[in-house]
Amino acid sequence: MAQSSRAAEHLAQIRQAAQRIGPHVRRTPLIDADVAPGLMVKPESLQRTGSFKARGAFNAVLSLVEREPRVAGVVTHSSGNHGQAVACAAQVAGLRATIVVPEGVTPAKVEGIRSFGATLVSDGVTYDNRERIAEEIARIEGLHLVHPYDDWDVIHGAGTVGLEILEDVPSAGAVVVPIGGGGQISGIALAIAALSPSTAVIGVEPVVADDAARSLHTGAMQTLATDPATLAEGVKSKSIGNRNFEVIVGDSLVSDIVTVSEDELIDALRAAWMRLKLAIEPTGALALAAYLTGRVPSGTAEHPTVIVLSGGNFDSAQVASLLV
Amino acid sequence: MAQSSRAAEHLAQIRQAAQRIGPHVRRTPLIDADVAPGLMVKPESLQRTGSFKARGAFNAVLSLVEREPRVAGVVTHSSGNHGQAVACAAQVAGLRATIVVPEGVTPAKVEGIRSFGATLVSDGVTYDNRERIAEEIARIEGLHLVHPYDDWDVIHGAGTVGLEILEDVPSAGAVVVPIGGGGQISGIALAIAALSPSTAVIGVEPVVADDAARSLHTGAMQTLATDPATLAEGVKSKSIGNRNFEVIVGDSLVSDIVTVSEDELIDALRAAWMRLKLAIEPTGALALAAYLTGRVPSGTAEHPTVIVLSGGNFDSAQVASLLV
Repeated sequence: MAQSSRAAEHLAQIRQAAQRIGPHVRRTPLIDADVAPGLMVKPESLQRTGSFKARGAFNAVLSLVEREPRVAGVVTHSSGNHGQAVACAAQVAGLRATIVVPEGVTPAKVEGIRSFGATLVSDGVTYDNRERIAEEIARIEGLHLVHPYDDWDVIHGAGTVGLEILEDVPSAGAVVVPIGGGGQISGIALAIAALSPSTAVIGVEPVVADDAARSLHTGAMQTLATDPATLAEGVKSKSIGNRNFEVIVGDSLVSDIVTVSEDELIDALRAAWMRLKLAIEPTGALALAAYLTGRVPSGTAEHPTVIVLSGGNFDSAQVASLLV
Repeated sequence: MAQSSRAAEHLAQIRQAAQRIGPHVRRTPLIDADVAPGLMVKPESLQRTGSFKARGAFNAVLSLVEREPRVAGVVTHSSGNHGQAVACAAQVAGLRATIVVPEGVTPAKVEGIRSFGATLVSDGVTYDNRERIAEEIARIEGLHLVHPYDDWDVIHGAGTVGLEILEDVPSAGAVVVPIGGGGQISGIALAIAALSPSTAVIGVEPVVADDAARSLHTGAMQTLATDPATLAEGVKSKSIGNRNFEVIVGDSLVSDIVTVSEDELIDALRAAWMRLKLAIEPTGALALAAYLTGRVPSGTAEHPTVIVLSGGNFDSAQVASLLV
């Protein structure tokens, strides 16, 4: 399929996703910030389940039920936010859910998964083996695997963030988005490329987890050699997914990917809490860190830079230690 | 003037305030909460200067400039949020501002006041003598005193919160608001009584600062004997103002005032940060504390209870110690 007809089809799918998930997720506000006149903030921390992941999870689970009404249930692997979101969507859809979570993730995320009645699998799970374990469970138990990012339904659900940003500020100059596996940014980039090609979509990674930046800059898929030592636990995936690579690198829908240090991330987290008054998790502060360090356009009142604060499921003790 | 024609006049003034301050303050979102299906949240912590006080301050300062274009400047006394708001409004209006602040208030509030170029008077200032000191400065320096709550312009500015709540949820069953001097709740009550008399307006105080509750329940103005030992520094005023008493007690526009303990306030503060993902100050958690302890109606999807989170100018070390 030619890129232009693919683009139209993706946009149609994102609009269908918005219809499908509308009754179940929150239309988050776009907030202007005292921090700078050219800055607008999209707080997906205020989304249902505390992160943007609810959008992709509801789209994937509800689409699955439309296609396969007799499906037994779903399984996924997640550092926590996608897991909570799939558990919530499965509960709403009346499906059972099994969530594979690496040992040691934020307790609030584990509690969230349990609160939605999902089965948690965590013993012996690492960032390395989690995908394989989830695939095995899917095969043995006959469950549908909802991949956290390399899945078009998940990508199109996340793309609804892009639709909402352009509804609220059609003249946005740039939209800045964290990248882990690339689900959120590829959805947003598909929406924005189709509707507002002059708006730049820019990704942000921790400097110690810069696989997507290297993939974009080299034009070939790059992976991380080891678990990255970053506070941003939501973006620890070893590489972006194949579908995400197709959007971000293959179709060139992301104009740049920048990186921030751990200290810069902590400064941004504090700024989010103290200046924006938004209680976000470290991963959620990546785009603000890129903004505050001048690595993305500062924006103007006419063409603001929009940063996506991706999630708010923080560990209270960790954040307390960073606030003092 | 009969109560009904006074009510119409107050509503007209609140609508004028909305027009006057519209370009300068933020239209805060109304957010539904995962916490309960009948709960909606009005986060004035996201307001310009970090609290609802920007509404009253901009209305008072801009009205003053309309009436007295050659006024020399303004002075006020404040535990911090009203001071920041007046400093900001005066800077926008090109007036000089002097802010009288008790010693020991949250450093972030003092920094905020200074950041807007205002003169800070703090040495020897207490919650007891602050009003007298501000009145002296007004007299000696020929400045206009913008009272933090006992001022119709301030009350009508705060009333725009009520207009916005009813725009977003016309069928609100109850609106729950913190009370210090009574500026915010009297403005909101005037708007809601005029537009939606079936919506209850309910106040919340710390149990150790229950002067307004006692005033309402006895029908006579009650005052606190000493500085109350509460984390909610925004509601430490000794009594409500005369104009506020007229609205709250005289015209019976507030249906009840409930109280919460300090432990209940801390639980609510944690819930605001961790479940609502909103970084608020202790005073801002009063209405949530009343909700979580069942002292106000739980609301329904059709007739939700709306709680106002009044401000987000917290002390980072204090909140860190409460979050751990």
